[in-house]
Amino acid sequence: MNAAVSDSEGSSVFGTGGRDDARKFARLPDPFPMYRGGQLHQGVVAYETWGKLNEARDNAILLFTGLSPSAHAASSPEDATQGWWEGMVGPGLAIDSERYFVICVNSLGSCFGSTGAASINPATGAAYRLSFPELSVEDIARAGYETLRSLKIERANTLIGPSLGGMSVLAFAAQFPRAARRLISISGSAAASPFAIALRSIQREAILRDPDWRAGAYTDAQPPATGMRIARKLGMMTYRSAHEWRERFARLPATPTDPPEVGPFAPEFAIQSYLEVHARKFVRAFDPNCYLYISRAMDRFDLAAHGGSHTEVLKRSAIEHALVIGVESDMLFAIDEQERLAKAFEQAGAVTTFAPLDCIEGHDSFLIDIKRFGNEMRSFLDKT
Amino acid sequence: MNAAVSDSEGSSVFGTGGRDDARKFARLPDPFPMYRGGQLHQGVVAYETWGKLNEARDNAILLFTGLSPSAHAASSPEDATQGWWEGMVGPGLAIDSERYFVICVNSLGSCFGSTGAASINPATGAAYRLSFPELSVEDIARAGYETLRSLKIERANTLIGPSLGGMSVLAFAAQFPRAARRLISISGSAAASPFAIALRSIQREAILRDPDWRAGAYTDAQPPATGMRIARKLGMMTYRSAHEWRERFARLPATPTDPPEVGPFAPEFAIQSYLEVHARKFVRAFDPNCYLYISRAMDRFDLAAHGGSHTEVLKRSAIEHALVIGVESDMLFAIDEQERLAKAFEQAGAVTTFAPLDCIEGHDSFLIDIKRFGNEMRSFLDKT
Repeated sequence: MNAAVSDSEGSSVFGTGGRDDARKFARLPDPFPMYRGGQLHQGVVAYETWGKLNEARDNAILLFTGLSPSAHAASSPEDATQGWWEGMVGPGLAIDSERYFVICVNSLGSCFGSTGAASINPATGAAYRLSFPELSVEDIARAGYETLRSLKIERANTLIGPSLGGMSVLAFAAQFPRAARRLISISGSAAASPFAIALRSIQREAILRDPDWRAGAYTDAQPPATGMRIARKLGMMTYRSAHEWRERFARLPATPTDPPEVGPFAPEFAIQSYLEVHARKFVRAFDPNCYLYISRAMDRFDLAAHGGSHTEVLKRSAIEHALVIGVESDMLFAIDEQERLAKAFEQAGAVTTFAPLDCIEGHDSFLIDIKRFGNEMRSFLDKT
Repeated sequence: MNAAVSDSEGSSVFGTGGRDDARKFARLPDPFPMYRGGQLHQGVVAYETWGKLNEARDNAILLFTGLSPSAHAASSPEDATQGWWEGMVGPGLAIDSERYFVICVNSLGSCFGSTGAASINPATGAAYRLSFPELSVEDIARAGYETLRSLKIERANTLIGPSLGGMSVLAFAAQFPRAARRLISISGSAAASPFAIALRSIQREAILRDPDWRAGAYTDAQPPATGMRIARKLGMMTYRSAHEWRERFARLPATPTDPPEVGPFAPEFAIQSYLEVHARKFVRAFDPNCYLYISRAMDRFDLAAHGGSHTEVLKRSAIEHALVIGVESDMLFAIDEQERLAKAFEQAGAVTTFAPLDCIEGHDSFLIDIKRFGNEMRSFLDKT
């Protein structure tokens, strides 16, 4: 069911995975202490890079991802397939690989090469599943930090993260003062809102109550597909916006899917076909236990847990320049959260730019409106 | 599992149900033709009334409900329990039972006394379940119209409906020209938006894919509780607003539920406890098949199906005065839908008031901010 999981457990773990695989792997310190207790042995982080590290070793951009992407942010000679941020990362692009050494990490706890619940526990020889220690956004950040260490980079030029990545860059800044000079948060959050917690807890419930979940011991042949489908459809619903969908789908009729959906209450509208296509892809692509772990980590994240107000935490981080981008149509990481984060950076003494965008594509706008997000980032990277 | 269902099938169908039951029942014409084909035999509509019909028989207000309420809009001497619009309907209140004869109908297809999928099919002696004919908002409207006929009321003074009820009043106006003088639409819609269709189709999928649904043949002892829970939690999420929840729940910890929720990924935040309480109530209260039928009917509703533009349809309805109320924080029945509906009424020649309210409680504001909604309605009813 999940090629990425077997990749991370295969013989190619510390090299690239063959054709169309640009991944490299950083070994984590052994043991790797987890934020909420427990530790990992023989942990790894999968990452990809674009560009070259300069001699001063001060041009590294560390890029964290949203909940579900891999480290493959963009195509490269090693992997020509489209990346999740194609058009944003590369030579001459907004995140310019001719100037910067760009490192994108697959989040710790995910299933695209980094160690997570679907990985083999070296102590048992079997997949961790629910024996994987509790995951926090802080662990994802620390794994990114260790990736930099493994490359002998003392200080990141810039941290960039959208969505969950926006939480990860804050968790990085909070835990590793002076380990980054600049920070770009895109549609992120300093603390999960109750609305976002509600959504994610319903997504998890759909998986947890799917009989095929089997307390995490599902088989590859019979994963909790219903739960994953519902989780993904809900994700799509809250990642976009009602406005965009009205323009795009209106009340157009459903298009046939293969295999077709039949039976009572079968789909009738195009928006349902769209959700169905995305749900089917997701069931094939993502590991359910990894999803549960990362989803809960997002709910739990609160920058204030690092001592004092958000401003105090950010002051200690010594981030010098911050760019906070948010989208007015984002229902999940609301624009007022972005504004409060920008204010906290400003009060912490960082030279801060707040960029509220009126894109209509909701939370996912950063994946779609490459031009506007690119311009904001390019301008920030050039001027600061 | 569902007291209301057995009530509607019991000996008291044509009377009130005993203590704390103010329902009356209107017999539908037999056969009752359904909008999309098929017909009902021995169909009934459960309704409650407040106030008295005047001699001219021109003071009747016909009130349609949202998806899940019964006809019990408010307490009365016959049923002292709180109604779903308590404080709005009654002597001296906004919908004033000293001036108006107020009739609230349980939607056809629902499970609180009106004929629906959970009712006994007189042809077989067993519950209809999926043999119930396809339900449309137009059928709900027609059942309300027939309720008026049974009371010998030629023309309603005012139609009022929130949410699904807002669709029902439009379907009434479209089908029965000149059968109502005034109309109040509250957070309704002239045509389901793709965002609302997405939400409802995911809610239905949760039920349809629950193994306990059993193609509609679930038992009272083992209903598709997981599907119904998820459907309700999603409903709660989209009926309220992120803003309200941030003020109300922030990141407060979960409160214990009885029985408690334990196991991996157990709830940690107050917002999850809140959703849980509502989900448990809903599983006990509402019939799953009825839910599926009504939910799909909402997706399918499009005023334009009645021939021509919304304006042309409304012109033929001969509604003289219209009040359209919407809420800016409503993500499900968006404020721009309300505005377009108000414009269509205006262009159709109705004297129209559009009242966009900035309540923070989202779609459900009409249930909470009784004062503001009451003032708008009272003012409209007094002046027109």
